[in-house]
Amino acid sequence: MSLTRRIFVQRIAQLGGYSAAYSTMQVLGLLPAVGQSTLPKLGADFGKGKKVVILGGGIAGLVAAYELRKAGFTCTVLEARHRPGGRSWSVRAGSTVEFTDGTVQYCDWQDGGYLNAGPARIPSHHTYLLDYCQELGVPLEVEVNVSRSALMQADVLNAGKPVEQRQVLHDTRGYLAELLSKAVSAHALDAELSADDQAKMLNFLNGFGDLNGGKYEGTTRAGFVVPRGAGPAKQVLHQPLKLSELLAADLSKGEFYEEAIDWQVTMFQPIGGMDRIPYGFAKSLGEIVKYDCPVTEITTGEKSVTVAYTKAGTPQTLTADFCVCTMPISVLAKTKNNFSAETQAAFTGMPMTALYKVAWEAPRFWEKDYRIYGGISFLKNTVDLVWYPTDKLFSKIGVIVAGFNSERDDVTGKPTAFGALPTTQAKLDASKAAVEVLHPGHSASLTKPIYINWTKIPYSLGCYANNHLASSDVPYAQLDKPQGRTLFAGDYLSHLVGWQEGAALSAHHAIERIALQMKG
Amino acid sequence: MSLTRRIFVQRIAQLGGYSAAYSTMQVLGLLPAVGQSTLPKLGADFGKGKKVVILGGGIAGLVAAYELRKAGFTCTVLEARHRPGGRSWSVRAGSTVEFTDGTVQYCDWQDGGYLNAGPARIPSHHTYLLDYCQELGVPLEVEVNVSRSALMQADVLNAGKPVEQRQVLHDTRGYLAELLSKAVSAHALDAELSADDQAKMLNFLNGFGDLNGGKYEGTTRAGFVVPRGAGPAKQVLHQPLKLSELLAADLSKGEFYEEAIDWQVTMFQPIGGMDRIPYGFAKSLGEIVKYDCPVTEITTGEKSVTVAYTKAGTPQTLTADFCVCTMPISVLAKTKNNFSAETQAAFTGMPMTALYKVAWEAPRFWEKDYRIYGGISFLKNTVDLVWYPTDKLFSKIGVIVAGFNSERDDVTGKPTAFGALPTTQAKLDASKAAVEVLHPGHSASLTKPIYINWTKIPYSLGCYANNHLASSDVPYAQLDKPQGRTLFAGDYLSHLVGWQEGAALSAHHAIERIALQMKG
Repeated sequence: MSLTRRIFVQRIAQLGGYSAAYSTMQVLGLLPAVGQSTLPKLGADFGKGKKVVILGGGIAGLVAAYELRKAGFTCTVLEARHRPGGRSWSVRAGSTVEFTDGTVQYCDWQDGGYLNAGPARIPSHHTYLLDYCQELGVPLEVEVNVSRSALMQADVLNAGKPVEQRQVLHDTRGYLAELLSKAVSAHALDAELSADDQAKMLNFLNGFGDLNGGKYEGTTRAGFVVPRGAGPAKQVLHQPLKLSELLAADLSKGEFYEEAIDWQVTMFQPIGGMDRIPYGFAKSLGEIVKYDCPVTEITTGEKSVTVAYTKAGTPQTLTADFCVCTMPISVLAKTKNNFSAETQAAFTGMPMTALYKVAWEAPRFWEKDYRIYGGISFLKNTVDLVWYPTDKLFSKIGVIVAGFNSERDDVTGKPTAFGALPTTQAKLDASKAAVEVLHPGHSASLTKPIYINWTKIPYSLGCYANNHLASSDVPYAQLDKPQGRTLFAGDYLSHLVGWQEGAALSAHHAIERIALQMKG
Repeated sequence: MSLTRRIFVQRIAQLGGYSAAYSTMQVLGLLPAVGQSTLPKLGADFGKGKKVVILGGGIAGLVAAYELRKAGFTCTVLEARHRPGGRSWSVRAGSTVEFTDGTVQYCDWQDGGYLNAGPARIPSHHTYLLDYCQELGVPLEVEVNVSRSALMQADVLNAGKPVEQRQVLHDTRGYLAELLSKAVSAHALDAELSADDQAKMLNFLNGFGDLNGGKYEGTTRAGFVVPRGAGPAKQVLHQPLKLSELLAADLSKGEFYEEAIDWQVTMFQPIGGMDRIPYGFAKSLGEIVKYDCPVTEITTGEKSVTVAYTKAGTPQTLTADFCVCTMPISVLAKTKNNFSAETQAAFTGMPMTALYKVAWEAPRFWEKDYRIYGGISFLKNTVDLVWYPTDKLFSKIGVIVAGFNSERDDVTGKPTAFGALPTTQAKLDASKAAVEVLHPGHSASLTKPIYINWTKIPYSLGCYANNHLASSDVPYAQLDKPQGRTLFAGDYLSHLVGWQEGAALSAHHAIERIALQMKG
């Protein structure tokens, strides 16, 4: 940034604060469009003598405590579990997975293998979370979200035989380019494109689809049947997949997956598991975080908040000047409180997503035999994706996720095909079946399954509150309002719901509102 | 693979050898289409008592020695330089870069920063090279070849202001989808698509371009002007870039770059620099590799080959049963030999590409201020790309490549705009200018430039022999023929020219032909 620009932005910052300066910098094009934080700049004494009780030691609660402590507040985090992180949870050797129905699974995977049961990726534009990782000394590595060697499969495509993702993507591109070329050449788009733009478009499409004079005849981009070699060896391209089969297969989930803003490269993961982040916060916060302290009642008022909870089964209370409540709404709906009727209604006003994951330990046949290093394969089975681990690539054994989706439709409330399966065994069988379709013969090598069903995880009772629905607007706005000295926070009160970055930004927003209340 | 299939393939292997089994497995769809190796399975005594002299200690020469030793041959590698690797060369603190014109550059970058002057990436389907890394214990990390946060810039686009790659890609997709939707809806493609396929296509295009009822009105995939936040914060999407500007800008190089088969995700790099691979081979080969031994004459015959060379300036000769000659054709053209006239002609029959790279040490402003972690930005300047390092992400200082392209057109032999610049200083200025266009104010922080011009690197005299040209077919076929007991090898004698995998496959092919000669 030039000196004059820098001075200009500094002046804005003096007049309007960080947030105004930030917006100005964005308008000037000086910053990438990363998360929008409203964390106020507060002096180290700002919160002196003020107590804040934070309910829930997930990312929102931990960030709130971490930032409030910086501003001089005295913080206590009450966490129901005996670990920090909430959904930022890595299941590994020694972990137990307990469901509300009493089912217990024990994990004894080898070689440090883990499953990130909740969030498993950090996009490079989730900059607050990335910065916290740097501040806390949590080492990150690149997470491979896409591999062109991963597979796609549908019964109506290629006689049901799986194909490499590069074939589906590039054959599709080829056909789209050829069709659009034809339409342009046939003057069907004269009303849309000038003659000059038509010429440029035809040229562009030749590159886009790797066309041969407007015709798609296959491309090296889609890979080889007989690969390239040395000397006289001749490579043979794949025959293009049939367009009508590609359309009928509708592999769009896999084709567009990597393009969603939060799944675009570059992505990261903490080395050793996502829970390295909450453990990093917890280490920094030390005694501030109280474990095994489920909340039983919240009584909010104009000047203070009193929280009843148990510690090792013994009832306790804690009164503070402010409460940042990051408990899931599904849990809040079942917790005694004195919130308004509108707030009570809001707790059940957004559906909790019923996400699940199934993971297995296995020898890395996907690397050894298929040369798939990370990324996700997609199919049209009951279990519709298989996600390969990025950690410890080239090692012997890994944890493969065969199934990550929802058990229930958020709008209709009806179970999905997977959710409708009657038993855990049936779900594990569906998971194995997906691997078998993609990697014939290899499902037999899957062992030590772990099945996560967020709806049945105590203190979560669902994955995240779906605030994308139109019906969520009213409860979202309601929960954004303080209830006396209680402020709600969590990813579900952000526009990055289901992401740790949303949880962090929501914590910032809660602090902004505490500061506003204090400034009166 | 199922047991019956496995047995079937084993039977094929017994009858027809590895190569037949491999082809069979490919046809059965049991293996991904990776490099095609013709390395024969030879017993450990096969080459007993036979000497092979290998000219050049780049990847082809090292692989040849490594595999021939396994088969019992007595090998000597004569390497002109005092290091292994040839173009697999990492410049770092302590390296000197000497040009044939006498220019010398000294590198003193900090913190282990390096430039891979030659190959810098390993695609996941270059499986022989990856397997050698595993065998040699060379640790790999993911190389980030694409970042959607990297930039694109053209003067005719967005008033010349750089934009995030995600904008160019997704706005382009949006427009393509909208145009094709219109053409389909206007029945311009009735001859191409059945009514049923048209309906499916329209549905697909809505997803492909993130259309709103067939219209492209921007997409979250292209990122935000005002990013997402918590609470009431409202995000604002980018205004789509103008289609006519996108077409005029022609950023196709950047748009299609990641789709080329050898640049598709997943990609790798050795931790610490590409030369970890040749050093891994060299460590294994020990005394077999003789450094500072430039070859002065090759005399090939029906029973043996005699090579004259110097060692520390002293003339020496070495006679062997076979010679695997991996020297660049540009160097062979100037080396005394008794090859046929056709072979002599072939040495000058393929143009040597004149690739260059310019690298700088700098504080990682691209990560800190732009949140670009790896990947490549593209622009339409004399220097047309800026490549961000993947190694040591999130650290303070890094080596950024500002310029990687050719100094000369391979067909016309004419200098490119960069190649035509009269001085090294002018080239460094062009490199800086590219960074300044993308990252205003930051080119001032670039220090300690290193400029690699392969045409001027002794013992290389060019980057690789371009065998893609139609005019290369005859010299390629000629050099694939043994000259008596001399066999040529190198990436340029493979269909993966410019890649280490091609060099490895070419070494395998040389060994195949040695085995054939021995079997008579």
